[in-house]
Amino acid sequence: MSKGKDTGTTPDTKQRIVTAGTELFRRRGYTGTGMKQIAEAAGAPFGSIYHFFPGGKAQLGEEVIRTSGAVYLGLVAALMEPYEDRVAATGDAFAAAADTLSELDFADPCPIATVAMEVASTNETLRQATSDVFDSWIDGLAAYYAGGGIPQTAARETASSVIALLEGAFMLGRAARSTAPVLTAGKAAAAVVRAALAGE
Amino acid sequence: MSKGKDTGTTPDTKQRIVTAGTELFRRRGYTGTGMKQIAEAAGAPFGSIYHFFPGGKAQLGEEVIRTSGAVYLGLVAALMEPYEDRVAATGDAFAAAADTLSELDFADPCPIATVAMEVASTNETLRQATSDVFDSWIDGLAAYYAGGGIPQTAARETASSVIALLEGAFMLGRAARSTAPVLTAGKAAAAVVRAALAGE
Repeated sequence: MSKGKDTGTTPDTKQRIVTAGTELFRRRGYTGTGMKQIAEAAGAPFGSIYHFFPGGKAQLGEEVIRTSGAVYLGLVAALMEPYEDRVAATGDAFAAAADTLSELDFADPCPIATVAMEVASTNETLRQATSDVFDSWIDGLAAYYAGGGIPQTAARETASSVIALLEGAFMLGRAARSTAPVLTAGKAAAAVVRAALAGE
Repeated sequence: MSKGKDTGTTPDTKQRIVTAGTELFRRRGYTGTGMKQIAEAAGAPFGSIYHFFPGGKAQLGEEVIRTSGAVYLGLVAALMEPYEDRVAATGDAFAAAADTLSELDFADPCPIATVAMEVASTNETLRQATSDVFDSWIDGLAAYYAGGGIPQTAARETASSVIALLEGAFMLGRAARSTAPVLTAGKAAAAVVRAALAGE
């Protein structure tokens, strides 16, 4: 740790800016978050955002989407992969997600969902970034389901639907300020995985 | 049709303002839509928005959420209720939703989803409006599933998960500019309804 003045150009500052962006986006969305708010939340001089992100908010937005996307991919893998039982692992992952939703006081546990909805029709670069992240999650989860004996194509469809269920359940749960839609969706997700394992 | 000058205070003008708000919200979100854009899209004098909505954007937002919520409840009922077979009806509804997604050029087929994500942590009045609308959809769909023999509590859980699947699939489909996630989610939704009918 340096004892000198924070000039706002250290890697540490960059990390704080990306983290602040992530946290604000999942509460206020991309459009509703200003660069000044991000600088304040990061405890960074305003100019330092443009030092790291000369392309401004769009560049910072893309970094937030891709970074948190990669982190979440690792997180889900770490949570689920120790389980042999794909049905139980899926249900338990939704129960853990419900806890997270509550701990976040109903901010979005998914760091890119609100942004994905806002940019899908308005910003092609950011839309592509959210699409790449969703794809990476679907690929990761599909590999896990395939490892449990679900054929490749069905495994990818199962993964896509389980992620859709989780994202939609976060939406309903945030609106209702309740974890019930996520817990309920966990049962449905387990049923979807069970049906795929049975070859239905 | 009046041949006189549009003073911007006719019921017709109000309807155009609400419709323009609905269309802009599903493309740009609530935060990303300005009152001026709504007036322009509605072909209405700027002042006429405040004539009908003295409470400004928040009041217009609530009217858009509640009005389109009621319309969609009727729409889904009209689409599904003629079917005796709840599994087939659910799969077909997702296929129709995939067509709509494509026809809208990947704007959100759900008129309140993007707004729901944006306001959940930032605007209590609008959050409550989106929650009421989701609840009305879940109630309507639950009654339909209960009519097919699924017990009350399970019918409501099934309805909640089917709506979560649809909302999440719209998110993935918009990000990927593809109807595939919605068609895939339709198979998963059918599996969830089938499991509920089997008492699983």
